Amino acid sequence: MTISSPHNDRIKAVRRLRRARERRETGHTILEGPHPLRAALAAGVIPEVVFVPEGDPAPDIDTEVVTITQQVLDTIAPTEAPRGPIAVIAVPEPEPLEAEPTVVLWELTTPGNVGTLIRTAAAFGWNVAHHGGADPWSPKVLRAGAGAHFVVRISEADDTGALRAAGLTPVATVSSGGVPPVTIDTSNPVALLVGNEAHGLPQDVIDACEAALTIPILGPESLNAAVAGSIAMYALSRGS
Amino acid sequence: MTISSPHNDRIKAVRRLRRARERRETGHTILEGPHPLRAALAAGVIPEVVFVPEGDPAPDIDTEVVTITQQVLDTIAPTEAPRGPIAVIAVPEPEPLEAEPTVVLWELTTPGNVGTLIRTAAAFGWNVAHHGGADPWSPKVLRAGAGAHFVVRISEADDTGALRAAGLTPVATVSSGGVPPVTIDTSNPVALLVGNEAHGLPQDVIDACEAALTIPILGPESLNAAVAGSIAMYALSRGS
Repeated sequence: MTISSPHNDRIKAVRRLRRARERRETGHTILEGPHPLRAALAAGVIPEVVFVPEGDPAPDIDTEVVTITQQVLDTIAPTEAPRGPIAVIAVPEPEPLEAEPTVVLWELTTPGNVGTLIRTAAAFGWNVAHHGGADPWSPKVLRAGAGAHFVVRISEADDTGALRAAGLTPVATVSSGGVPPVTIDTSNPVALLVGNEAHGLPQDVIDACEAALTIPILGPESLNAAVAGSIAMYALSRGS
Repeated sequence: MTISSPHNDRIKAVRRLRRARERRETGHTILEGPHPLRAALAAGVIPEVVFVPEGDPAPDIDTEVVTITQQVLDTIAPTEAPRGPIAVIAVPEPEPLEAEPTVVLWELTTPGNVGTLIRTAAAFGWNVAHHGGADPWSPKVLRAGAGAHFVVRISEADDTGALRAAGLTPVATVSSGGVPPVTIDTSNPVALLVGNEAHGLPQDVIDACEAALTIPILGPESLNAAVAGSIAMYALSRGS
């Protein structure tokens, strides 16, 4: 059977998962494209259902697979150039914080930045913690993460106290006035806080950190938040 | 006078500048928001015209300023959350290549990545060269550049021969199999080539480079192209 109507009830339910509120209420999200689905399957995630566009090969998995028309795909997929398959998955529970290098996404609001930092964390073997801002499990963030969500540990971070209680040393990333990465003591695992794109980290959060780090640049320019956080992870991983 | 109709001829002409072809034919582009406009003005760019939403302060510049309604702004601005003012500017001519560290954007297609790399180049004092892919002067790229377009030198790069002729040593960025940044000889200024998000650099281009650089990561993950290029600029700037 092929679903060919965008008004089909199951398709409407999937489309509603673009909204944060619907994801919270149902505990589900959507994964788009072959690469994120492969990464999810490799991590042992079992989708609730996979929608495959007509003519595409059906994935070899032990779950419900439903064929859809290209027109239906266009109405489900949250991106401009939709690509099947579309998998509905349960949003994993946040994992407990661990005493391992962790990048803390603090009220970042751009889905592309959140996804990019999760991808960088996976590449450098860091964990991720999340505090407010863009939903790390939104379709746009999953897309920018390129499968990394299923490789990294993703936790919630209430405050710097919770980070310290987990054995982490909180370090703030600030756009100016901080010390260069090479001077940060990484003998204890660092929780690297990266703040909002427009406003940075709140001052009380910076004050509650052990140190503030700035990537040395030529003033008065600035770095994109995902780039600053990524360079800091690279530098702290190497101690340089 | 306030323009309140989205069908006004001048507004329609501005809206057409979202298209690459229209920008090529007219030699104009649009700058959105106060920060890029400030950066352009500081660099001596004189807009053809500035459209200011009703109620916003008019910029203090010696050029035509036209008031528009919020509704008209919404139809002009290429982003989801449009922000005035909207300035129409002439696209600058490409500058000649110089023997100074240069990041070469080689067939990158995501506007956010192109703008982000231009922003990083400005922050580390690098020049930029462009070869195919996303138009570096598109509204989306200008937005991601956050004003950096008016700080950096932006050239065209036909091929690696043109880079060498300008006194640059071409170095390819590759996702695996290259040497770490610390081993790259930077005694001569480097042209750091960053390739397409999905396909990387063409093999013949890699072969024509002096060296291939890889940011050391945990396999089998990967870095976003703008992040890889940004980390490479950081590392080569520091020699680490």
